[in-house]
Amino acid sequence: VLPDVHSRYDIGRNCWRNHFLAMYGEFCGTFIFLSTGYFTAQSANHGWMMKEYDDKFDSHPARILMIAFGFSMGLMVSIFSFCDLCPCAFNPAVAFALFLVRGMSFVRLVLIFITNIVAAMAAAGLVSAMTPGKVAFDLTIGLGASRTRANFMEMFGTAYLCIVVIMCAREPRRTNKWCALPIGFVLFAMHIWMLAYDGCGINPARALGSAVAKRYFPHYHWIYWIGPLSGSIFAALLWWILQWLDYTKYIEAE
Amino acid sequence: VLPDVHSRYDIGRNCWRNHFLAMYGEFCGTFIFLSTGYFTAQSANHGWMMKEYDDKFDSHPARILMIAFGFSMGLMVSIFSFCDLCPCAFNPAVAFALFLVRGMSFVRLVLIFITNIVAAMAAAGLVSAMTPGKVAFDLTIGLGASRTRANFMEMFGTAYLCIVVIMCAREPRRTNKWCALPIGFVLFAMHIWMLAYDGCGINPARALGSAVAKRYFPHYHWIYWIGPLSGSIFAALLWWILQWLDYTKYIEAE
Amino acid sequence: VLPDVHSRYDIGRNCWRNHFLAMYGEFCGTFIFLSTGYFTAQSANHGWMMKEYDDKFDSHPARILMIAFGFSMGLMVSIFSFCDLCPCAFNPAVAFALFLVRGMSFVRLVLIFITNIVAAMAAAGLVSAMTPGKVAFDLTIGLGASRTRANFMEMFGTAYLCIVVIMCAREPRRTNKWCALPIGFVLFAMHIWMLAYDGCGINPARALGSAVAKRYFPHYHWIYWIGPLSGSIFAALLWWILQWLDYTKYIEAE
Amino acid sequence: VLPDVHSRYDIGRNCWRNHFLAMYGEFCGTFIFLSTGYFTAQSANHGWMMKEYDDKFDSHPARILMIAFGFSMGLMVSIFSFCDLCPCAFNPAVAFALFLVRGMSFVRLVLIFITNIVAAMAAAGLVSAMTPGKVAFDLTIGLGASRTRANFMEMFGTAYLCIVVIMCAREPRRTNKWCALPIGFVLFAMHIWMLAYDGCGINPARALGSAVAKRYFPHYHWIYWIGPLSGSIFAALLWWILQWLDYTKYIEAE
Repeated sequence: VLPDVHSRYDIGRNCWRNHFLAMYGEFCGTFIFLSTGYFTAQSANHGWMMKEYDDKFDSHPARILMIAFGFSMGLMVSIFSFCDLCPCAFNPAVAFALFLVRGMSFVRLVLIFITNIVAAMAAAGLVSAMTPGKVAFDLTIGLGASRTRANFMEMFGTAYLCIVVIMCAREPRRTNKWCALPIGFVLFAMHIWMLAYDGCGINPARALGSAVAKRYFPHYHWIYWIGPLSGSIFAALLWWILQWLDYTKYIEAE
Repeated sequence: VLPDVHSRYDIGRNCWRNHFLAMYGEFCGTFIFLSTGYFTAQSANHGWMMKEYDDKFDSHPARILMIAFGFSMGLMVSIFSFCDLCPCAFNPAVAFALFLVRGMSFVRLVLIFITNIVAAMAAAGLVSAMTPGKVAFDLTIGLGASRTRANFMEMFGTAYLCIVVIMCAREPRRTNKWCALPIGFVLFAMHIWMLAYDGCGINPARALGSAVAKRYFPHYHWIYWIGPLSGSIFAALLWWILQWLDYTKYIEAE
Repeated sequence: VLPDVHSRYDIGRNCWRNHFLAMYGEFCGTFIFLSTGYFTAQSANHGWMMKEYDDKFDSHPARILMIAFGFSMGLMVSIFSFCDLCPCAFNPAVAFALFLVRGMSFVRLVLIFITNIVAAMAAAGLVSAMTPGKVAFDLTIGLGASRTRANFMEMFGTAYLCIVVIMCAREPRRTNKWCALPIGFVLFAMHIWMLAYDGCGINPARALGSAVAKRYFPHYHWIYWIGPLSGSIFAALLWWILQWLDYTKYIEAE
Repeated sequence: VLPDVHSRYDIGRNCWRNHFLAMYGEFCGTFIFLSTGYFTAQSANHGWMMKEYDDKFDSHPARILMIAFGFSMGLMVSIFSFCDLCPCAFNPAVAFALFLVRGMSFVRLVLIFITNIVAAMAAAGLVSAMTPGKVAFDLTIGLGASRTRANFMEMFGTAYLCIVVIMCAREPRRTNKWCALPIGFVLFAMHIWMLAYDGCGINPARALGSAVAKRYFPHYHWIYWIGPLSGSIFAALLWWILQWLDYTKYIEAE
């Protein structure tokens, strides 16, 4: 028998006013999360753009840490602020994974998916308008990584992110805003290893927003969609294996 | 019907002895918060002042992280220490936002506002007196940002800060010192993206204190007042929309 | 009289299905923890490999912080995600220490030990296959440290790690996923001081995995086994002295 | 009427076996805390020693962050591990402040004071023996700070540290190991601003240990004793003013 759809992510599911409240929270959260990240990346990459480095292959640890802090702190404060109001996916791939593990209804998924993408484009437009110089927060492949490798990195990175979301935010029975910490930590960890290789998307909305703001889509833009969404399926699979092994009964016996 | 003024920020509101205790806590907290931040900025900028960089447009990620840690750690430990004693705004713009969302009475707002400014000037004086070299922790516009852009950045940065304060510290019914974490995180995130562009005020007291200590007011000093205070209004607006949508009833139904 | 074996780490001990669930969680956790760390180290060391540094003896603080964040964040999110499912050692030396302080039965120890090593080799294989360039996350001695010194560093580092695990995760009576924070912090601290000297193993599985992926075993590879396992004994000894002093009775009297 | 001596820091005060247990925990904690910090400083300063910098006046942000992480993470994990066993001062100045706010009896103060100093010297000896090159973790004045300024910095830094310890660990009625976070944060913040100016002592044991290990006492070594101990008095004064204002009654009325 299937587990029930989780009320944590799907409060008052049949009512348009409740859908609207969830979308309102999701829009504000995604906007704060991504504009903080975009701004930080723009600032960190400013000097890097200005001079022509002779060591384009270096990975610039301090710059990477700064950008990783921008995105992960932005995500954590958005979860802390809006976790009572909305599913706090802030990411179409995470929303898709939550749908796959029966954390959200299909209608809610579609609304959240669209809200995330609209909020990401709005945030990218704001950052592009408010900072001097051209857009520097878009995603590119670096350090000589191939498109295939970058695609698999996106898949594994998103899978790790979704596993943490599922195990820390969907599994516990009660709403718990402190799941912001593990989720922020995993986003931080994913950014520090992926930034130099492919810019660290693991979020189709983040990738689309910056590409629209720069008015430039690299020919490999698809990896920032195929990678994350297949990562969501991978993470959901791991959870369904746990269900099949009667994980919940095992926990309760403890 | 309007929600009651929140007792968390306005304990014993009619009594001068209670006002005095709140001002005592607010003074100590603001002093510790801002002197820690000023000291860190002074130390981080010391080497940067000494040599004439040929790349004034670089954003120096490690220096930015260091200053951001200084201010955000200072803020967090002040909240942890004094959250039983005072509203812990440590910032006239945050105090104003708390007043707008009915978290504080008007008399308390005026007293906190003045206390924050006095404490910031005292902290700036201490740091200026105790460190060698001229004052290096004042706010300036950098990376080619215009005054208009810097003003809007101040507005958005303060709005994000106030939204987190409102949702994490004003909304929950009971005093909770762990709201120090999200508030510290958002201050950290704001610093890492704004430091290179305009020095990251988002706090009129912080801006005034360092300007007084350096005895120099740039002609665009007004952006560190207009920006933050309009950000407070922006954040309060978001909360009033939630009230209008009956957010509290929605939470309780959960 | 000996204390009972702790149920926290040894749930349903006589049943192969429960052993399988624990191994499943331990495999996923070790894989996520070590692949995150390996990826970060590979990325951080990429630029460092490319150019011939004239200052091989420098300790590159930003690079060290980046790698330390990779391993410690990876460990923390794995503990947060799988602490209900498995002992969360993710490290044969920690599993050995937990056995020595009666936190785990011998059968469970053997299974966890093997699972950790298999997962580490799988993670190292993944990272090696998915990143461009040769393997750069293997352990080497640096800064002129001798093998003896490196061996003792491994011993002390592992002992500190195991002491924190024992005092924060084994001692408290109930399962508590927040022990992830102190354990992650101690791994971070060990990495920042040991990385420049010997690469920071303190985990035989981590050392074996990267050596297998690079197909190169330095002649001093034994220090990454002897050091950590003697560190486990050292940490367990400290706990047995506390037992002998009737520490538990002292706590309860409090 | 005076408040009672706090049982949190003075369990079983009349019994030598209990004194011994507290000293055992205090020794282990101070040893882990300071050896982690010393090791990190030694590693971070290794490269800095090797080459003759032309910019001795730079403050090297990444190096400062690395050392600050070493000391603060070491302190936090020691508090997490030993907070049930001992007062967790790990610092004669903090122990003195706890005595002044009636958190510890005089006998316990003397024993803790001596234990801290012995543990610091043992930790410094270990780090000195186990790392290649000469001792690089001793305290010196830098960036052109005078002895008077350094002395006042030590005083303010220790006062901030003690205020956080008093308000977060002594004030709450029940033992709470999470006070490790604010205390670790304030140590981090103090390190990042003071490291470049005077090395950041704020702990006479830490200063003595490294001076003994290097067998060199600078003529201004007294500032690392006078500064911190006067800071303790300063912090205790702030708490006594709160007592005089009936702070506890005010809290309970809330």
